[in-house]
Amino acid sequence: MTGKLYGVGVGPGDPGLLTYQAGSVLEKADVICPAAAAGDKESLALKIAGEAVDISGKIEKLIFPMTSDEEEKKRAWQRAGEKVIRHLEKSRDVVFITLGDPLLYSTYIYLLEEIKDRDRSYPVETVPGVTAVTGCGSSLNLPLVKGEDRLAVVPAPSSEIAGFREELVDILAEFETVVILKPSRRFAQLKGILQDLDLLSQSVLISRSGRSRERIAAESELLDIEEIDYLSTLIITDKGGDFSRKGD
Amino acid sequence: MTGKLYGVGVGPGDPGLLTYQAGSVLEKADVICPAAAAGDKESLALKIAGEAVDISGKIEKLIFPMTSDEEEKKRAWQRAGEKVIRHLEKSRDVVFITLGDPLLYSTYIYLLEEIKDRDRSYPVETVPGVTAVTGCGSSLNLPLVKGEDRLAVVPAPSSEIAGFREELVDILAEFETVVILKPSRRFAQLKGILQDLDLLSQSVLISRSGRSRERIAAESELLDIEEIDYLSTLIITDKGGDFSRKGD
Repeated sequence: MTGKLYGVGVGPGDPGLLTYQAGSVLEKADVICPAAAAGDKESLALKIAGEAVDISGKIEKLIFPMTSDEEEKKRAWQRAGEKVIRHLEKSRDVVFITLGDPLLYSTYIYLLEEIKDRDRSYPVETVPGVTAVTGCGSSLNLPLVKGEDRLAVVPAPSSEIAGFREELVDILAEFETVVILKPSRRFAQLKGILQDLDLLSQSVLISRSGRSRERIAAESELLDIEEIDYLSTLIITDKGGDFSRKGD
Repeated sequence: MTGKLYGVGVGPGDPGLLTYQAGSVLEKADVICPAAAAGDKESLALKIAGEAVDISGKIEKLIFPMTSDEEEKKRAWQRAGEKVIRHLEKSRDVVFITLGDPLLYSTYIYLLEEIKDRDRSYPVETVPGVTAVTGCGSSLNLPLVKGEDRLAVVPAPSSEIAGFREELVDILAEFETVVILKPSRRFAQLKGILQDLDLLSQSVLISRSGRSRERIAAESELLDIEEIDYLSTLIITDKGGDFSRKGD
């Protein structure tokens, strides 16, 4: 029998937000694989998992270089897939860990495609995690949606942002709450759009939710911010939150 | 010092999907409040929590009658708020538990508004939970969104469904994946819309995810279904999942 591939979400940042199932899968795992941009780079997912569970001695990083070269990316997925399969063939259970949830914008999806794209089929189990969307809502005690409200989850554009302003207008006409993920990559332009569309009073940014140096900025405070952490989320909502801090 | 109000999400169904933090808050709580439509009605959130943690002896249901009468609803929120505040004033920590996440379509939001609407302010802490959105994705090993994809979360209309078809067309033009919550209340009409818009091949329904009698139906199988469980989620996605079962 082959081993099993698990995709495990470790949640948005606070190690207390791992699920019991995630903890139990990590404890029993033979090999635990975080994604890393290079061999010497730290993985935040690994750090969070290690704060919750003893995972020492079974870490094996999968290297996915930060590149826009599609061929290079594809080769990295293939290498990662082969590495994982070698363990599965030796009946070892492999856990790929990821921030947030494995099926929501995670590299796990590419790994899953690699594994499925083989002659032999391997057992796969995905363990969902708390996402940055609800993690940030909770850090703010901010209602996201109720009743018939609609929620949009939209990554900030990675390149061309020209059309994003108009798309955001269309989305806000249909959705009460819009969560913009990875705002760090276009923050200056996003700020301009929020100001232009008169959305600042409905906007709140949260960085490093559940980690040290967590930071919250709302409304006009957003204009003073020049640079933000990669681990940030921008929420636009007409739900009228007072953007107050957790536990206040 | 007053007690603290916690809103705790117990996840989508499997008790293993409670977070460590949810478990720890439930264990230390003085009073645990699930919402119930009547005093003799079972709460699924309570059932799930009880399968993960010993919560016996501290349960106090908050009654929210199933009604469309806004005045009656408002009175129920007020009564619930007063009940919770009586405990907080006696320095007891109160945990309101909810399926999925507390800030995503939960009655916790109304309770939070009641508590905030008072002369005195009470400490509040929200503990996020795994939502049905990612819970169902994981049960299916189904990638929801990757890269620049967008995700829409849309409750099925509670009444008037006439305009929903056109709204869905608009949403599908902007979003790669649409998750329709509470499809049970309009399932016959939703099926018709999926068929009309030629979306059946991209659709999958999952009922009772992570519970006994979990059921998955995809594509043309959907047409044969007459009635579905309240605990169901419909996912429309062009991500090309093969809708295979977890652990297969």
